[in-house]
Amino acid sequence: MTGFNNNVPTKFPKHLTPKGPNGPELLEAERAKASFDVNAISKFMYGEKFLAKMNNVARVLESEPAFEKTQRYFQGRPERIAHAYEKDKRLIELTKELNWDLEERRIANMWYDQSTPYSLHYGMFMPTLEGQCNEEQRKLFLEPALRHEIIGCYAQTELGHGSNVQGLETTATYIPETNEFDLHSPHLTSSKWWIGGLGKTANYAVVMARLIIHGKDYGPHPFCVQIRSLEDHRPLAGITVGDIGPKFGYATTDNGFMLFDHYRVPHISFLSKFSQVKPGSGEYVKPPNARLSYGTMVFVRANIVNGNRIALARGATVAVRYCAIRKQFVDAAEPRKWDNEVIETPVIDYTMVQYRLFTVIANIYALHFTGREMFKLYDLNMAEMKKGNYDLLADVHSSSSGLKSLTTTMAVEGIEQCRRACGGHGYSLFSGLGQFYQDYLPNVTFEGDNYVLTQQTARYLLKTFRNVVAGKAQPSEHNQTIAYLTQYMQNPKATCPATSGAELMNPEILISAFGFRAAFGIAQVAEDIDHHGKSWNAALVDIARISKAHCQYMIVRWFFTGLQSANELGPNERKVMQTLAYLFALHTIDTEMSEFMMSGYLSPAQGKLVKDQVLELVARIRPDAVPLVDALALPDYYLASALGRSDGKVYESLCEMVEREPLNHTLVVESYENYIKPFVHKGLDRKKKESKL
Amino acid sequence: MTGFNNNVPTKFPKHLTPKGPNGPELLEAERAKASFDVNAISKFMYGEKFLAKMNNVARVLESEPAFEKTQRYFQGRPERIAHAYEKDKRLIELTKELNWDLEERRIANMWYDQSTPYSLHYGMFMPTLEGQCNEEQRKLFLEPALRHEIIGCYAQTELGHGSNVQGLETTATYIPETNEFDLHSPHLTSSKWWIGGLGKTANYAVVMARLIIHGKDYGPHPFCVQIRSLEDHRPLAGITVGDIGPKFGYATTDNGFMLFDHYRVPHISFLSKFSQVKPGSGEYVKPPNARLSYGTMVFVRANIVNGNRIALARGATVAVRYCAIRKQFVDAAEPRKWDNEVIETPVIDYTMVQYRLFTVIANIYALHFTGREMFKLYDLNMAEMKKGNYDLLADVHSSSSGLKSLTTTMAVEGIEQCRRACGGHGYSLFSGLGQFYQDYLPNVTFEGDNYVLTQQTARYLLKTFRNVVAGKAQPSEHNQTIAYLTQYMQNPKATCPATSGAELMNPEILISAFGFRAAFGIAQVAEDIDHHGKSWNAALVDIARISKAHCQYMIVRWFFTGLQSANELGPNERKVMQTLAYLFALHTIDTEMSEFMMSGYLSPAQGKLVKDQVLELVARIRPDAVPLVDALALPDYYLASALGRSDGKVYESLCEMVEREPLNHTLVVESYENYIKPFVHKGLDRKKKESKL
Repeated sequence: MTGFNNNVPTKFPKHLTPKGPNGPELLEAERAKASFDVNAISKFMYGEKFLAKMNNVARVLESEPAFEKTQRYFQGRPERIAHAYEKDKRLIELTKELNWDLEERRIANMWYDQSTPYSLHYGMFMPTLEGQCNEEQRKLFLEPALRHEIIGCYAQTELGHGSNVQGLETTATYIPETNEFDLHSPHLTSSKWWIGGLGKTANYAVVMARLIIHGKDYGPHPFCVQIRSLEDHRPLAGITVGDIGPKFGYATTDNGFMLFDHYRVPHISFLSKFSQVKPGSGEYVKPPNARLSYGTMVFVRANIVNGNRIALARGATVAVRYCAIRKQFVDAAEPRKWDNEVIETPVIDYTMVQYRLFTVIANIYALHFTGREMFKLYDLNMAEMKKGNYDLLADVHSSSSGLKSLTTTMAVEGIEQCRRACGGHGYSLFSGLGQFYQDYLPNVTFEGDNYVLTQQTARYLLKTFRNVVAGKAQPSEHNQTIAYLTQYMQNPKATCPATSGAELMNPEILISAFGFRAAFGIAQVAEDIDHHGKSWNAALVDIARISKAHCQYMIVRWFFTGLQSANELGPNERKVMQTLAYLFALHTIDTEMSEFMMSGYLSPAQGKLVKDQVLELVARIRPDAVPLVDALALPDYYLASALGRSDGKVYESLCEMVEREPLNHTLVVESYENYIKPFVHKGLDRKKKESKL
Repeated sequence: MTGFNNNVPTKFPKHLTPKGPNGPELLEAERAKASFDVNAISKFMYGEKFLAKMNNVARVLESEPAFEKTQRYFQGRPERIAHAYEKDKRLIELTKELNWDLEERRIANMWYDQSTPYSLHYGMFMPTLEGQCNEEQRKLFLEPALRHEIIGCYAQTELGHGSNVQGLETTATYIPETNEFDLHSPHLTSSKWWIGGLGKTANYAVVMARLIIHGKDYGPHPFCVQIRSLEDHRPLAGITVGDIGPKFGYATTDNGFMLFDHYRVPHISFLSKFSQVKPGSGEYVKPPNARLSYGTMVFVRANIVNGNRIALARGATVAVRYCAIRKQFVDAAEPRKWDNEVIETPVIDYTMVQYRLFTVIANIYALHFTGREMFKLYDLNMAEMKKGNYDLLADVHSSSSGLKSLTTTMAVEGIEQCRRACGGHGYSLFSGLGQFYQDYLPNVTFEGDNYVLTQQTARYLLKTFRNVVAGKAQPSEHNQTIAYLTQYMQNPKATCPATSGAELMNPEILISAFGFRAAFGIAQVAEDIDHHGKSWNAALVDIARISKAHCQYMIVRWFFTGLQSANELGPNERKVMQTLAYLFALHTIDTEMSEFMMSGYLSPAQGKLVKDQVLELVARIRPDAVPLVDALALPDYYLASALGRSDGKVYESLCEMVEREPLNHTLVVESYENYIKPFVHKGLDRKKKESKL
C-alpha cells in the first residue's frame, strides 16, 4: 500500500438531504387519512396491559448494549454467536433486576428476535422436564435448570431420522446388574442432529432413545443425561459432540450433533412421570394414557400459529410504510402533486402493489383471531381432558396441525411478498427483512413438516366424514367440522346464491362457501379411497388440499364470528376490521378459485364478481393502509429497518447504516495490492513507455 | 479457561457408517431403471461440444485453490470478498494459460457461481462501451478495459430511483468554456446506488446522468468517467464513493454508491456513438433510431431466461438425488424391502414429493426450449433490424419482458420447492441450496421488476388485439400472438373438445387451450379499458395475469414444436421428453385452472380430468427421475452440496463438512468463560456447601 493514511472512513456529505417530499411528510399525510383510532385497534389486538409491556420492554432493550442490533447485519457467525451468549446472560440479569414476569421475558425475546444458545433450554428442555419428571427428578434436574446451573437441550432428531420418531436409532439398554442405562449410537445416521443449544452450550440433554430391556425394544423414551463437565465444560468420555455448521438462518443458535459410545447413565436419568422401568427387575410399566402428550404438541403449534401474525405484521409494517414513501414513475393519466408540483407516484398508489400488500394486512388481522381462538380451544380441551373427557382432543389436534401448516406457509409467503414490494432496497439487509426471512423460514419445516402435517388433519376430516355419513356424528358448538359436513350432505348440489358483489359481502354466504368447498373435497377423497381403492399415498396431493380447505374455513369463520362478539370495538374500528374480513375471505376464494368452481358451487360469472370485489375492497383499504400497520404497534427496535422506521427517514437511515459497513472504514480495499494494482500499473507502465516513444 | 489443551478438533468416529441401504446403492438402483440413454439427452440439451467444455472446465476448477468452495459456507463477507478478488485474477490468468474462449470463461463463472467484484466489468461496463463508444472512445476506454488496465462498472440506479430511468437526478451540465461536463449530485437521493463493482473495485464508471446544455434538460445519457486514482486507487477529488453494505445474497459483490460534487470530466467522456454534443457550441444531435437500444435489453433478458434452466436444474438435481436416498416412515400399506428386510420408504416414493419435484423437472426441460427459441428469435430480429425491418421488434421485446418475469419467478419458486423437499437438511448450508437461493433471488427484481415488466408485455398484447379486431394484423410464422388472437376472435365461445385424460394428451388441444385462455384475458382487459373507461393503473392486476397467460402459451408451444423438430432424439429419449411436455402443459393448466374455467373453455369435469392426468404423468416419470436430473450434467463442483452429490454419499459428506466448522476446532467455546461458567459454578459451589452441611 502506498504511503497515505488509509484509515479514513467514508462519510456522506452532511449538507445533502433527500429530494422532497420526504418520508416524514409523506407518512404524516398518510396518518392524517385514518378513518379510525389507531390506538383503539392496538388495544383491541393486544389488550391494554400487554401493549404497555410491549412498549416498556422495547424501551429498556433499546439502551442495553447486550441487545444492540446495529452490528448484526455486518457480523459473521462467530461474532454473532458470541454476542448472543452475552444477550442470554444479560436477559437473566434484567429479568431479576426489573422483576420481569414470564410475559415480559417473552416479549424481550420477541423484540430481540433471534434464537440464541439458551433458547432451547427454555423452549424445550425445561418444558420437557416439567412434563416428564417425577418428584425426585424435578429436584435433581428442573430446579438447577431454573437457576441456569445446568443448561439443557432436547435431543430427538438424528442425522438419518427426522419426522418419524419411531425410526430413531439411538439405544438405551437397561443394565440390571448396575441399574444403569447404556446409551449407544450404532451408526453414523444415529448421531443426534439439529439439536438447538447442543453444539457448544448445553451440559445436559434430554435424549430420546429406544428403550431396550432384556433384549426387547420398547421404542423411543426420554432420558435426562449430563453431557459436558460442570467443572470445565469438556464433553464427557463416551460422548462426541459439536456444532452442525452454518444454516439458512439461525446463525446465533449452536444446533449440534452427538454420538454415544456405550455411555452409561444412572437409573434416575429415565424420565418416569408416565412410563417406568423397575430397578433391578427391569419390569416396564406403560404410561396410563398416551393421549395426554398431545396437549403439549397442540400448545407448541398454537404458539406458532399465534406468532405468525407478528411475523407477518413485521413484513407489512416495513413494506407499507416504505411504499408510501418510495416514489416511482409519473402516472401520466393521474399525475400526483405536492405543493402544486407534479411528483412521481408513491408506489403504494399502484393497484398491483395495493393488491399484494393489503391482502397481507388482511391476513395479519385474520391470523389474530385464529391465534386467539386456537388458544381458547386449547384451554377448553385441556380443561375437558382433566375431567376425563377426550371428545375435543381429535378436533383440536387436527386443527392445530393443519393451521400450523397453513399459517406458517401464509406467513413465509407474505413476508417475501412484502420484501419484494420494497423493490431493490428490499435486498439490502438494512431493510430488516432479509435475515428475518431466513430466521422465520424454518417454521414451515420444524414442529412437523407442512406437507406431512396435512395428513394428520385429513385423517381426522375423513374419519369425521365417514361418521357423518353413517349418522354417527352430531354438530356441536365447538365442532364446526361436523356442522359443515352435515350441511353438505344435506345438499351436495348446492350453489352460491350471490348475484352481485354487494351480495357477496355477507358472512353467512362466505362461511357457507368455504364449508361447502371443504366438504366437497373431503367427500371426493373419501370416495377415491373408500370406493375406488385409492391408496393413502396416491391420495396425498388431494389430502394436502382438503387440509388447507378446512383450515381456510376455520380462519374465515373465526374472523367473522370474532368480530361479531368484539363488543369493545367502536363503529369506525369495527368498520375497517369488517372490510379486512371481507377482503380476507374474498381474496382467499380468489386464490383458490378453481376449487370453488370445480365443486360447482361458484359459477364463472360469480368468479368474476369475486375478483372485482377484491379490487374494490383493496381500494377501500387504501387510506387506512399506514394506520393499519401503525396499529400493529411494532417498535422500531424490533423492525431494525431503514425502510420501515416509524418516522419515515428512509434514505437518511440507509446512509447512516452504510457508514457502518466495515469496507467503508478504509479508503482502499486490502485486496487492491494483489488483485487490482498489478493490472492497472501494467497499464500505467505501458502509457509511460508509449509517451516516451 | 482451565489448563487443558482446548485446541482439539471434534472428529466423527472413523468406524461408524450410515445405516444401510446406503446412498450409493440406492442411486445405483435408481439409475438402473432409466428408460433412456442419459448421455444422449445431455448431448441433446447442450450439444456435444459444449457438454465437453462443461466437463472440462469443471475438472480444471476443482483443483484450483482460487476457485475452492469448501470455505464458502463458513466465511463472513470480508473473507468471501477477498477470496472473490483472488478468483477474478486467477480466471484472467487461466483464460490465458489454457487459451479458453468466451464460452469456457462463461462456464467457469457459471460453475464458480457467485458474482464477484469484476463481474459487472464484463457484464455491463464493457458491453456498454462496445455499444456506445465512437472509434476514439473505443481506443481510450474499451481497449484498456479488455486488458484490465481499467476496471469499470455501470452506474445507473440511484438511492431514490430504480426502474424509472427518466427520474434520475444526477446532472451532467455542459460547460462550453472548457468543453467539459460538470457531474453533480443535487440531493442525497441522487447518489448512485446498487452499482456492482463500484463499492471498492472500479476505477472507471459509465455514469447515466441528465444531460443539461444551456439550461435545457435532454434526459439521461451515458458518460464514461474515471473515479479512482490509477496510481493508488484513492477516490478522486469531488467523488464520494463506497460500498452499500450487506445484502440478501451477493456477498462477494461490492455494490456501491457514489456522489459527485461538481466533478468535471472532459468532452470525450460523453459516449457518443448515437447522440452527440458538438464541442463549443453545445449543439445536441439526436440518436438516429432509439429502438436500436432495445436489442441489448432483449439480449440480457434472453440470457436470464436461458440461465433459469440451469438454476432450476441445480435445485432439482440436489433434491431428486437426496429424496431417492433419504428414507422416512414405513409405508404400512406397501412396505419397501431391501435384501428382504423392510426399510423406511425413500421420500421420493411419496406422491406429494413426486408432485412437487417432477413438475420442477418438467419446468427445466420446458425452459430449455424456451431459452433456445428466445435466442433464435433474438437473432432473427437482429438480422431483420440490420436490414431496416423492425416488424418483429415489438413482439420479441414483449416476449422477452414477460418471459424474464415468468421464468425467473418459476425458477425462484422451483428452487425453494426443491430445498423444502429436502426437509431439515435442506436448511443446512451444506445442502448447497441456501446461499444459492439468496444469490439467485434478485433475478426477480433486477433487469426489470417482475411485476413492472408485465406491463410492457401487456401493452403489446392489447395493441395487437386492437389491431386484430380492426382487421389490421395478419398471422405470420414468427408472430403467434396474432395467430391465437385471430383464432379466438373467430370463436370466442369455443370450448375444449377433450372428453378423457387420453384425449388431453394432444399438443394441438393443449396449445389451443393456452391460446384461448390468453386471448380471453386480453379481450377482457381491452373491454375494461376501451369500453368501460378503466384506467391502466386500475387494470394492473389483470395486466400481470395476461402477460403470464401469454408467456405460458409461448412456453407450452415451444416445448411441443421444439420436440417435433428434434430429429436427433432417439425413440426412448423422445418418449420421456414428450411425457415431460404433457406434464408441463397439464400441470400449468392445473395451477392456473380458474382462468381456464372462468373463460368457459374448460368445464369442472374437464378440470378433474386434468388433475388426474397430472398425477398419472407424475407416476410415469418416477422411474426416470434420477436419470432425468443426471442428464442435466451438473458437476459436483458446481452443486457444492452434501445432499446432491452424484455418488450419493450424503451422510458421510455432511459429517466431513461439519468437521470444518470453526466452532468445532476447539473443545470449549470461548464464550463459556464469561457467559456459561458463572451460572454453572455457582451451582457447584451450592452443592459443595450443601454437602458440607
